[in-house]
Amino acid sequence: MRILVLGGDGYLGWPTAVHLSDCGHDVAVADNYARRGYDHELGVDSLVPIEPMQVRLDAWREVSGKSIKCYYGDLVDGQFTAEMIADARPDAIVHFAEQRAAPYSMIDRQHAVYTQQNNVIGNLNVLFAIQQVDPDIHLVKLGTMGEYGTPNIDIEEGWLEVTHNGRTDRMLYPKKPGSFYHLSKVHDSHNIEFACRIWGLRATDLNQGVVYGQETPQTARDIRLATRFDYDAIFGTVLNRFVIQAVLGHPLTVYGTGGQTRGLIDIRDTVECIRLAAENPADRGEFRVFNQMTEKYSVGEIAKIVANSFAGSVEIEYLDNPRVEQGEHYYNVKHTGLVELGLQPHLLSNTLIESLFRVADKYKERVDLAALRPTVNWRQATSPLR
Amino acid sequence: MRILVLGGDGYLGWPTAVHLSDCGHDVAVADNYARRGYDHELGVDSLVPIEPMQVRLDAWREVSGKSIKCYYGDLVDGQFTAEMIADARPDAIVHFAEQRAAPYSMIDRQHAVYTQQNNVIGNLNVLFAIQQVDPDIHLVKLGTMGEYGTPNIDIEEGWLEVTHNGRTDRMLYPKKPGSFYHLSKVHDSHNIEFACRIWGLRATDLNQGVVYGQETPQTARDIRLATRFDYDAIFGTVLNRFVIQAVLGHPLTVYGTGGQTRGLIDIRDTVECIRLAAENPADRGEFRVFNQMTEKYSVGEIAKIVANSFAGSVEIEYLDNPRVEQGEHYYNVKHTGLVELGLQPHLLSNTLIESLFRVADKYKERVDLAALRPTVNWRQATSPLR
Repeated sequence: MRILVLGGDGYLGWPTAVHLSDCGHDVAVADNYARRGYDHELGVDSLVPIEPMQVRLDAWREVSGKSIKCYYGDLVDGQFTAEMIADARPDAIVHFAEQRAAPYSMIDRQHAVYTQQNNVIGNLNVLFAIQQVDPDIHLVKLGTMGEYGTPNIDIEEGWLEVTHNGRTDRMLYPKKPGSFYHLSKVHDSHNIEFACRIWGLRATDLNQGVVYGQETPQTARDIRLATRFDYDAIFGTVLNRFVIQAVLGHPLTVYGTGGQTRGLIDIRDTVECIRLAAENPADRGEFRVFNQMTEKYSVGEIAKIVANSFAGSVEIEYLDNPRVEQGEHYYNVKHTGLVELGLQPHLLSNTLIESLFRVADKYKERVDLAALRPTVNWRQATSPLR
Repeated sequence: MRILVLGGDGYLGWPTAVHLSDCGHDVAVADNYARRGYDHELGVDSLVPIEPMQVRLDAWREVSGKSIKCYYGDLVDGQFTAEMIADARPDAIVHFAEQRAAPYSMIDRQHAVYTQQNNVIGNLNVLFAIQQVDPDIHLVKLGTMGEYGTPNIDIEEGWLEVTHNGRTDRMLYPKKPGSFYHLSKVHDSHNIEFACRIWGLRATDLNQGVVYGQETPQTARDIRLATRFDYDAIFGTVLNRFVIQAVLGHPLTVYGTGGQTRGLIDIRDTVECIRLAAENPADRGEFRVFNQMTEKYSVGEIAKIVANSFAGSVEIEYLDNPRVEQGEHYYNVKHTGLVELGLQPHLLSNTLIESLFRVADKYKERVDLAALRPTVNWRQATSPLR
């Protein structure tokens, strides 16, 4: 298939592109390099050095013999988006190209507005371009499990059968997201569902859990193919932070009680989910939703797993939670759709965490301790960057 | 109370401002005159001539002895929004200042993007300004009944008690809106609920039905105080179009079977609902939702009421429906919240329609027949303006 990966320079966009290419698909990527710009703004950097896109593409050609075409541009530019899609003529578009950090969206008004403007308008432009170029193109859109929040009932895959006063309907699952970023994805989901309904587009909306891991079989083939390892308080994820803290001999910093439970997924499963979704497209007019996660853990449990996996001794420290979220809550998520398409999950194991310890140890001189400290406070309208 | 009416130059913003002023509140209005700009763009005009804001304000001072302060600016400009709210220091903000036409948002990509960008970002800026200036300010935000779509279960007021697999939660009512405009209001509602949750803001989200009528006791006091009468296919509402068609001796044009049922409300009730909401604010942290409508009718029923009310003979013509919507559907809406606060509805009666016939007859020389013809097709990504 011809597959266009939007946001192909990102933490997941790049491993997805090389995975799809390795599986024999004709892949193109697009990016505006905004993610690298956020690093400049925040004064942080990926723990693992990452090469410029052109170096990555050359390296991939060397090791695989396969070419990936690259588009440079911004999805907020509707004309660029339409011309690129007309030029690439993909069978599927994988859309990773959004600002993805909840804390980044909560820094202040400007960052909240940027996040919603960038994500919602970019996605609208993609929908219009698909309708104009070829409504048969399958949109595989990255959402997040954070769209659901923590309801007191089971989380279904995007739709809910509701019985009320003796009548029944199948409705979009009611969502209660926890940041202006998560809200942007809820807005996207509503816009996509509408485009499927009125134009008969085909879309798969992937509500992805927190992704862990940094290597895939493809990125491991050459150091120049490496993807990001974010550990800072704004773009980093909790497992990465704990791994760094353990390696440096610092306490693992748990926010609040650590009872917050989240869905998780291994990076190798993420890229495989994308392949499965792309190769098994939604029907015309179908708004299909998968919960792209394989396991659930509380933040406290993740801290214990990291502590127990580490060779040395590790303390756990509890900080005030800068976020507004429930400390303890019900969390039962259905996630069978991708397994039914053939996903064979890698579960969080000591082996994986040991590989993260190895990466962190190799690059520990690059750690910026100040970047680990949470500065963004959900209860304020303005927070300092660092 | 001090009340700031955003969008105070619009069809409803203006009558609301003079109603609140007449009731003894200290009122200010804000507008960027975008609504007048859409007329220039589309080559249409209100059937009833409307005076510039400064003339309206002078006229109101003459007839009432009361002053209304006026701010000129755009809510998309976050700095303007914050400075205005800091200057006005209102107890309540009534937010009408959004692009409000479903067909306008469906013209093409640019109009869809404009609508979501304008509405969502403007509303975000208002939320941040409230949090920064005074989180006690009560936001009274205009939404639309169109946010709900036409579910097969009863429509509650914004929230739904859901029991699923033996567990229960109170959740945001799942919405399935019918245009990029309606979607923008769904996005707003999610953003506002979140601001109430994390910052403890107080908000009333009003899901308003289709408003009919053109006069209130205040606007009737001087011809210079008149508000808009829109009958064109983009900004006009179905009742206004039928009234014009009857007066001109043309057939009433019903889209589809006419089985589409909608909630309706008299303009005199709209302004009263706003007063009731403002004078009875939501609690801190509360996201309160009212369905601001008083009756429901199908489009076919509205056509019959207009035809039966008109002195002459009137034909009804059925056109292909340019919208994507269910022709026949269940529609049972709860709307008790505002009645409990004291609303005494004016129901759709021959008297009201006769007053509309009178207005239409007075200004019938100003009717532009070409503007009545629907041009925006929901099934296409691009439609002609006229």
